[in-house]
Amino acid sequence: MAHYGFLGTGIMGGAMAANLLRAGHSLAVCNRTPDKLEPLLALGAIPCASPAEVVAASAITFSMVADPEAALEVALGAGGVIEATGPGHDYIEMSTIDDVTSRKIGAEVVATGARFLEAPVSGTKKPAEDGELIIMAAGDPGLFEDAEPAFDAMGKLAVHLGEVGTGARMKLVINSIMAGVMVAQSEGFALAEKCGLDLPSLLELLDAGVVSSPLLRAKGPQLMARQYPTSFPLKHMQKDLRLTLALADQVGQPLDNTATVNQTFIRARVAGLGDQDFSAVHEVVSKDERPCA
Amino acid sequence: MAHYGFLGTGIMGGAMAANLLRAGHSLAVCNRTPDKLEPLLALGAIPCASPAEVVAASAITFSMVADPEAALEVALGAGGVIEATGPGHDYIEMSTIDDVTSRKIGAEVVATGARFLEAPVSGTKKPAEDGELIIMAAGDPGLFEDAEPAFDAMGKLAVHLGEVGTGARMKLVINSIMAGVMVAQSEGFALAEKCGLDLPSLLELLDAGVVSSPLLRAKGPQLMARQYPTSFPLKHMQKDLRLTLALADQVGQPLDNTATVNQTFIRARVAGLGDQDFSAVHEVVSKDERPCA
Amino acid sequence: MAHYGFLGTGIMGGAMAANLLRAGHSLAVCNRTPDKLEPLLALGAIPCASPAEVVAASAITFSMVADPEAALEVALGAGGVIEATGPGHDYIEMSTIDDVTSRKIGAEVVATGARFLEAPVSGTKKPAEDGELIIMAAGDPGLFEDAEPAFDAMGKLAVHLGEVGTGARMKLVINSIMAGVMVAQSEGFALAEKCGLDLPSLLELLDAGVVSSPLLRAKGPQLMARQYPTSFPLKHMQKDLRLTLALADQVGQPLDNTATVNQTFIRARVAGLGDQDFSAVHEVVSKDERPCA
Amino acid sequence: MAHYGFLGTGIMGGAMAANLLRAGHSLAVCNRTPDKLEPLLALGAIPCASPAEVVAASAITFSMVADPEAALEVALGAGGVIEATGPGHDYIEMSTIDDVTSRKIGAEVVATGARFLEAPVSGTKKPAEDGELIIMAAGDPGLFEDAEPAFDAMGKLAVHLGEVGTGARMKLVINSIMAGVMVAQSEGFALAEKCGLDLPSLLELLDAGVVSSPLLRAKGPQLMARQYPTSFPLKHMQKDLRLTLALADQVGQPLDNTATVNQTFIRARVAGLGDQDFSAVHEVVSKDERPCA
Repeated sequence: MAHYGFLGTGIMGGAMAANLLRAGHSLAVCNRTPDKLEPLLALGAIPCASPAEVVAASAITFSMVADPEAALEVALGAGGVIEATGPGHDYIEMSTIDDVTSRKIGAEVVATGARFLEAPVSGTKKPAEDGELIIMAAGDPGLFEDAEPAFDAMGKLAVHLGEVGTGARMKLVINSIMAGVMVAQSEGFALAEKCGLDLPSLLELLDAGVVSSPLLRAKGPQLMARQYPTSFPLKHMQKDLRLTLALADQVGQPLDNTATVNQTFIRARVAGLGDQDFSAVHEVVSKDERPCA
Repeated sequence: MAHYGFLGTGIMGGAMAANLLRAGHSLAVCNRTPDKLEPLLALGAIPCASPAEVVAASAITFSMVADPEAALEVALGAGGVIEATGPGHDYIEMSTIDDVTSRKIGAEVVATGARFLEAPVSGTKKPAEDGELIIMAAGDPGLFEDAEPAFDAMGKLAVHLGEVGTGARMKLVINSIMAGVMVAQSEGFALAEKCGLDLPSLLELLDAGVVSSPLLRAKGPQLMARQYPTSFPLKHMQKDLRLTLALADQVGQPLDNTATVNQTFIRARVAGLGDQDFSAVHEVVSKDERPCA
Repeated sequence: MAHYGFLGTGIMGGAMAANLLRAGHSLAVCNRTPDKLEPLLALGAIPCASPAEVVAASAITFSMVADPEAALEVALGAGGVIEATGPGHDYIEMSTIDDVTSRKIGAEVVATGARFLEAPVSGTKKPAEDGELIIMAAGDPGLFEDAEPAFDAMGKLAVHLGEVGTGARMKLVINSIMAGVMVAQSEGFALAEKCGLDLPSLLELLDAGVVSSPLLRAKGPQLMARQYPTSFPLKHMQKDLRLTLALADQVGQPLDNTATVNQTFIRARVAGLGDQDFSAVHEVVSKDERPCA
Repeated sequence: MAHYGFLGTGIMGGAMAANLLRAGHSLAVCNRTPDKLEPLLALGAIPCASPAEVVAASAITFSMVADPEAALEVALGAGGVIEATGPGHDYIEMSTIDDVTSRKIGAEVVATGARFLEAPVSGTKKPAEDGELIIMAAGDPGLFEDAEPAFDAMGKLAVHLGEVGTGARMKLVINSIMAGVMVAQSEGFALAEKCGLDLPSLLELLDAGVVSSPLLRAKGPQLMARQYPTSFPLKHMQKDLRLTLALADQVGQPLDNTATVNQTFIRARVAGLGDQDFSAVHEVVSKDERPCA
């Protein structure tokens, strides 16, 4: 039996699966378009005909698909994961999905006698390729321990947070902080430019000070160049802000600042920047308003 | 003649002057309360009777006093700097003062034939002691070059930004970004706590990710402990936000987010947190609202 | 056959049904707790055993129940409206319910051959008693015409807005404006008080000027007395703001101000003011912050 | 001796002076450009050569000039008011000026033995012509009583608020409420339009409800027509918001909503709408964001 199975071999999932193979793990995979499996097969992956076959062939199967709908289809659709999970055939959902979908899949999997983790990640294409993802796991603690060799191959940090749902919530908190930091930087750069200050000096001074961060070093030059190559699409960040504010409303935490940040991201999305990187919010923060007709 | 003079030997200035002496520079100093000079005299400083005497004894004199009023008194009051500045006796104002005061002092100094720089710093007590300040200089470029040995002893980065006034404006931009990042972190921690998420895990995950920064590592534990030992007083940060928003209004840059952040800092100041560290803004962001009477 | 039927005879519905009877219309009613029908029976209402019986006995039946769940139960539950709707037995849903619920009920009713209107109202207990409600109807235009005698008895203005869903959306827009006006007044009164200005003079001056409104005259004295007798509960207003912002996000309209207003209402709800009038938002806007422990 | 004197005969002042004359009061006037006095002379005004001559000829002199600089020049410049004030020659400053300027003029006037009032007004050209201004007086209460016949001719309501400064502050509070109401309406209309709701129906429903106000009836049609004929220039409203927020900061009143409203007005000002009516804020609230280049 293969040690691991992997479902979803797109940009993120393909890179993660490759890292599992490179670390020496045997890996079962499948894809509706078999051509897409070739890079993984070249690394030694074992092809299967369906998600259920992958699960049947694996002790632990990971899923990394595009959205909640795809996650539901892979897990609960025809030929899906649920047809093969059970004792000894566990499931770890790493896709970014909402709380409700995660619990639904988890409950179905657990009902078959298998163990379940949700394990959304922080990090985009580059960290996925470099095995530098940050993994926010929640659910069965024993499965978390058993999956550690796989998490080691895919990420630089994996934390077990509690029961199913806490991983998704933690990811929202982290992304909303990222959005707030991004807008704080953007407003600073916009003001500096309007004041005639030298932007490279601003970046140098910031990077020497307490707000220096990988985000500053990655996005600062983008703000100056007004080029925003997509790492994390702006529309996805705005969706996460929406979910964060809904969560905060539900638990009774006012978030004045995050609510304002969300409106700025909505303005950017409406301006057609949704598919660019979330740093493109700078276009609406900094743009010279034109006289209205 | 002493190479350098130093005026203002409080917490910040005292540490900066000591670093000049430790770097082997001769240094003239004065203080109305001579006892306060003892630590510097022990390092070899030369005592003078007035700011004017310090300037007369020095090629370049630095000032690091508490506020614009003190800066004006030291520079333009009786026995002040202006009585001795002139060719070969230049002046560098490192105190955090507003644009107008800086230009006023600069104009008077330059009228005597001396050169002038404003050079506000970023960093508090610890960086001052460690010679790790960030120095934002503006004004005479030749004086900036001549002062580099002194800046090397006091800071880890010194940048020349342009004409007098750009240093003060750059400092506002940097501090307003710092405030925005602080509130973004604070709202994230507050939401995480309300959701029952584990805060040490949040900090660990953030620190492994793109928003990791010295500010996160310094303030994150303070947010969890709800202890805010003062490094940069909250009321001073709110003052800087006020000045930043006034500057943005003047140059025509909307700052939705910074305006919201400022109101949050006002709320914190009104709640009696003005003398605590600016991270104490977390108290008003996160507090459980009590039923109103 | 009775001209009209009425389902839901609580504070609002009871007053509306009474106005139909007082206007001379015959009216079929029902209630699980028959005692509650007595005031209406005294006015000549005809008692029935179930919603379905009311509909069977009536050309047009109106519903005014507490929430979407109650609306679904009354319409689609056992003994519900849907068992009797059909040609000549039309249905008008006046409860405040969301878009999705409204469409669902509408589709089921229309499938039986009956006509359907959603007709949420603006106005609370007093306008309901006085027949002064504002009625935002949407759906079948012929039914709107046929129902005009009833709307005349219950309201002072009834408008037909378009297809099902536009009534609910219009109500959200109107309530969000009301919330924004309320907070603008509240912040003004709070600032005036902090400045030592005379509040009765403020109210007099406002009432003589362009922002004079029934809302100002109703709530201004409440702000001064810090008493907020419930007309429209704060928690319901905050729910409407949440729905408004979700709608705006969906259609791509940034609402910076309404987003801020919503956070203020969340703060008030969390402070335990949810069951007081929405004017109680003034407690969190104006309260003196106490020093944090 | 003329009963009254009037300084500043522009759009506002000219209309106010005419109302004093029409009410039968004798009135002394002056203007650097004598032609501009003709309409008033036709109504019987007495021409003078300088502000000082007007004051000398009058028991009470009113001033209604463009801004603080003009107010200072008229009051304290060569040939100014101060040269003739004294017992029996009192002065009422009705121009919209800041607190500091008002106190300065008041102190100088009072030092001559005359009485002083500040009396800023609410209302624009039309109310000025119709004698329907709202007058916020502050300062000497005896002078307020003596001036009542004049206030009756110029306004529909005159209130005495307290010591000098309270008039200016009250006006800021009222204008900031007006700005908040305007933006609340604007966001509602913008959302309604994006949702495909019928705007005339929205206006009709609002006008039948609790937020009906003269402002709604005046500006609602402007929002629909996207035409904003200037009654109160947007840039002046934004200036008042700036002063309001500075006052609130000083007295310790957080104003989350007003701070957001101010940023929206700054955005509108920067978009070139400063000279249009303040209702033109709707252009930036509602505009369709264009894809950024």
